[in-house]
Amino acid sequence: MDRLIQKIRNIPDFPKKGVAFKDITPLLQDASSFKRAILLLAEHYRNSKVSSLVSVESRGFILGAALAYELGVGFIPVRKPGKLPYKVERISYNLEYGEDTIEIHTDAIKKGDEILVFDDVIATGGTAQAICRLVEKLGGVVVGVCFLVELTYLKGRDKLKGYDIFSLIKLGK
Amino acid sequence: MDRLIQKIRNIPDFPKKGVAFKDITPLLQDASSFKRAILLLAEHYRNSKVSSLVSVESRGFILGAALAYELGVGFIPVRKPGKLPYKVERISYNLEYGEDTIEIHTDAIKKGDEILVFDDVIATGGTAQAICRLVEKLGGVVVGVCFLVELTYLKGRDKLKGYDIFSLIKLGK
Repeated sequence: MDRLIQKIRNIPDFPKKGVAFKDITPLLQDASSFKRAILLLAEHYRNSKVSSLVSVESRGFILGAALAYELGVGFIPVRKPGKLPYKVERISYNLEYGEDTIEIHTDAIKKGDEILVFDDVIATGGTAQAICRLVEKLGGVVVGVCFLVELTYLKGRDKLKGYDIFSLIKLGK
Repeated sequence: MDRLIQKIRNIPDFPKKGVAFKDITPLLQDASSFKRAILLLAEHYRNSKVSSLVSVESRGFILGAALAYELGVGFIPVRKPGKLPYKVERISYNLEYGEDTIEIHTDAIKKGDEILVFDDVIATGGTAQAICRLVEKLGGVVVGVCFLVELTYLKGRDKLKGYDIFSLIKLGK
């Protein structure tokens, strides 16, 4: 895991002062790290019943799509308002300041579908929680919520109680 | 190929009147179509020397990342201004109305790197042309430019003269 952690770059004060941004692009652009991260994430779900993987734009799409491909399941995008062209279900959720809205195609999930939710980083957990609720609005069952990186000090896990959570890399302050 | 074409949904007047949008989400969410599209794209580059794949947010990230994974190469994101947190190179290019700017991390490509450029759809070709120029600004060599879907009637190919172009699905009007 240490080799993967070395490929995550710390960017102080991005996107705003006081935030230490975790830049995963060095990991993505290194072929062996990219492959290793996906294989380690996939390993965790080899014996799970998953019908599709859901992830959120834009960064979540990268590892999320490769993970869906490795698991041999379909990929369902969750996007910001107005980006998905067909009928959508939407949800709004609170951010530190203000709120955000995300959408999913209503025909992407059927009742009872086993959905794996992925995002690259879990910070406060608000986005992941909103994605889970969106999946459930369509009748999907969230069989797991997984992340490449968990910022443990932000306690995002607390928002995801009752879900099976897996994060490959845990980072403290 | 017909089975894949059936998974591309035509959305009239999206994002604006007169545009027939090609919605690839039905293809992505169908596990076997998603897999098949990636394997067919990858097949074309099995004997090519590729060091990394470059793709552009947001939709390009999905198939682009899965293709990079299947080819066993690194993935390099090109993004809208202000999204990449480290040092960037940027390029502006003309759209039908107005202009757009995209950025890439300067440390993503070294001189002589063999770069495969991917996007999901080629329409007028402006974005793909800009990505190729951005890669070359950093000293990379564009060894191929590939797309899931080519809208042949928009003649995007004309903007990519001199490059090796491959599109899996060609759609006429």
